[in-house]
Amino acid sequence: MWGIIATWSMSLESLKNASQSLEASDSAAKTVVTAVQKVEDYPFYKSVGYGGLPNENQEVELDAAYMDGDSLAIGAVAGIKDFANPVAIAQSLSQSKVNNFLVGSGAEKYASQQGFKRKNMLTERAKKFYQRRLQTTSQTAKPYAGHDTVGMICLDQQATMTCATSTSGLFMKKAGRVGDSPLSGSGFYVDSQIGGASATGLGEDIMKGCLSYEIVRLMTEGKTPQAACDQAVFKLDHQLRQRRGTAGDLSVVALNSTGQWGCATNIADFSFVVATQIAPEPVVYLANPSNQQTIIKPASAKWLEKYFAERSSTLT
Amino acid sequence: MWGIIATWSMSLESLKNASQSLEASDSAAKTVVTAVQKVEDYPFYKSVGYGGLPNENQEVELDAAYMDGDSLAIGAVAGIKDFANPVAIAQSLSQSKVNNFLVGSGAEKYASQQGFKRKNMLTERAKKFYQRRLQTTSQTAKPYAGHDTVGMICLDQQATMTCATSTSGLFMKKAGRVGDSPLSGSGFYVDSQIGGASATGLGEDIMKGCLSYEIVRLMTEGKTPQAACDQAVFKLDHQLRQRRGTAGDLSVVALNSTGQWGCATNIADFSFVVATQIAPEPVVYLANPSNQQTIIKPASAKWLEKYFAERSSTLT
Repeated sequence: MWGIIATWSMSLESLKNASQSLEASDSAAKTVVTAVQKVEDYPFYKSVGYGGLPNENQEVELDAAYMDGDSLAIGAVAGIKDFANPVAIAQSLSQSKVNNFLVGSGAEKYASQQGFKRKNMLTERAKKFYQRRLQTTSQTAKPYAGHDTVGMICLDQQATMTCATSTSGLFMKKAGRVGDSPLSGSGFYVDSQIGGASATGLGEDIMKGCLSYEIVRLMTEGKTPQAACDQAVFKLDHQLRQRRGTAGDLSVVALNSTGQWGCATNIADFSFVVATQIAPEPVVYLANPSNQQTIIKPASAKWLEKYFAERSSTLT
Repeated sequence: MWGIIATWSMSLESLKNASQSLEASDSAAKTVVTAVQKVEDYPFYKSVGYGGLPNENQEVELDAAYMDGDSLAIGAVAGIKDFANPVAIAQSLSQSKVNNFLVGSGAEKYASQQGFKRKNMLTERAKKFYQRRLQTTSQTAKPYAGHDTVGMICLDQQATMTCATSTSGLFMKKAGRVGDSPLSGSGFYVDSQIGGASATGLGEDIMKGCLSYEIVRLMTEGKTPQAACDQAVFKLDHQLRQRRGTAGDLSVVALNSTGQWGCATNIADFSFVVATQIAPEPVVYLANPSNQQTIIKPASAKWLEKYFAERSSTLT
């Protein structure tokens, strides 16, 4: 069995390639990094890689992580600037015994020494978003609510599981701000013997519940990915409301070692993409919360058309 | 009931003050930060704050975190240089709704804007350690094995729990390297309704098991802090050996909302300090692993004398 699941519709094209790779017995390691890199390279994805929206200083600072579910090896970078593919740097770091998580200029030094491709990640389009935001707020610009980090979990035919995340984080974030995406157990977690999970939403709230670790743990208890996702998301949502009066956006995807998958969200129309050996053509689904459960339906052609048109429309 | 538990004997002096504060009904928030600051200020603690051993470039880069167990608010910094008290910066960050975790120059900018005290954290003693290390290895200097991060869990008479960590990380680490200490669920976690835990050891391995979150979770199931610590540490130790052939140092302390405490370790003579309302004079204990359990005994006066003498001896 093989399978791959990814947050947000923007991963659709990536998963078409990933599906072919996995069908051809490529490794989960290679497949997930290639798939996330493709999203990083896509200029219209506002929260990941090239075209990602900048921080308060109009700098694109990127976070990424990679985890191998066989060895539990983790690599991660945070607050890195001017490199094309943070996820590849994260994967490279996962191969060391120590120094697996590097931030800021130290991460950049490592990436440079290892020969990773440099690139100015700020696009003209992202600059326009930044300048518009400065104009529309009277005093301080506020963080952007729509933060669609890419997170993927992958299972290959050799029964190895991997996961990877990549994000530019909150639009207008403070310089050096790190969300959940590069943090083990919060933005991602995978164990080849059980399954994996990845989260997207308000990183500051996701890390209050170690959401991805909790989902994998619930799967260890025998829960399906869907039951594990629902239980973890709605429990954390409830806890945050109870303790803080409000809960940020929480959305998760999960895949287990038998190729079953699940998704949960506390927001409207969270989209994600899945392909598995038994349904190898990637499908975009829409998830909506309803009474402590997540209702999942395939996205209509019309919805997809509108989504992609909005994302790639010209900014005037 | 009040209580406080801290990793490593070096916290003994801090806990004497903390014990008095908690007895006088001070808050867990104030007490834990004051206690960790005192350790940060102590020049002979080689892995925390002033006197912490430097990275590969002879720079002292610090990580710290703070968590409030009522609101689950988290603040953290990583890879920060030239500030006296990283834990106070972390606590300050926990008060924002977003941008709670800042790294590198962004963290320094925030700390500077907020008026936190600047200090060159590299001592003459730490420089000697660095220079000796350069001389003793033929080619590349290797990371130092004895990394004694401070981590504390605190319960006040108002039933609020907090935790805080602070570290200079691995000696000779790569610039920008982040361990488990500032990562929610790995280096620390606390929930006032249940309890808290903090870890020290090889951060890269601790984050593979989200060790602190797992201990709090086991306490949620009704386990005592001691049973939760033992179960989590020996399970992760086993998993790492099975998957990777080797496990790094893993040591944890935990305290629950009724003032019960626990500790587990996979190394010899891991020391920690505890004070509670029913035994307010802080006691240093030594923990040793034995057959999937941790054997805990008070440290002898002789052991303590030797420990402190070694730590503060003149380097020639």
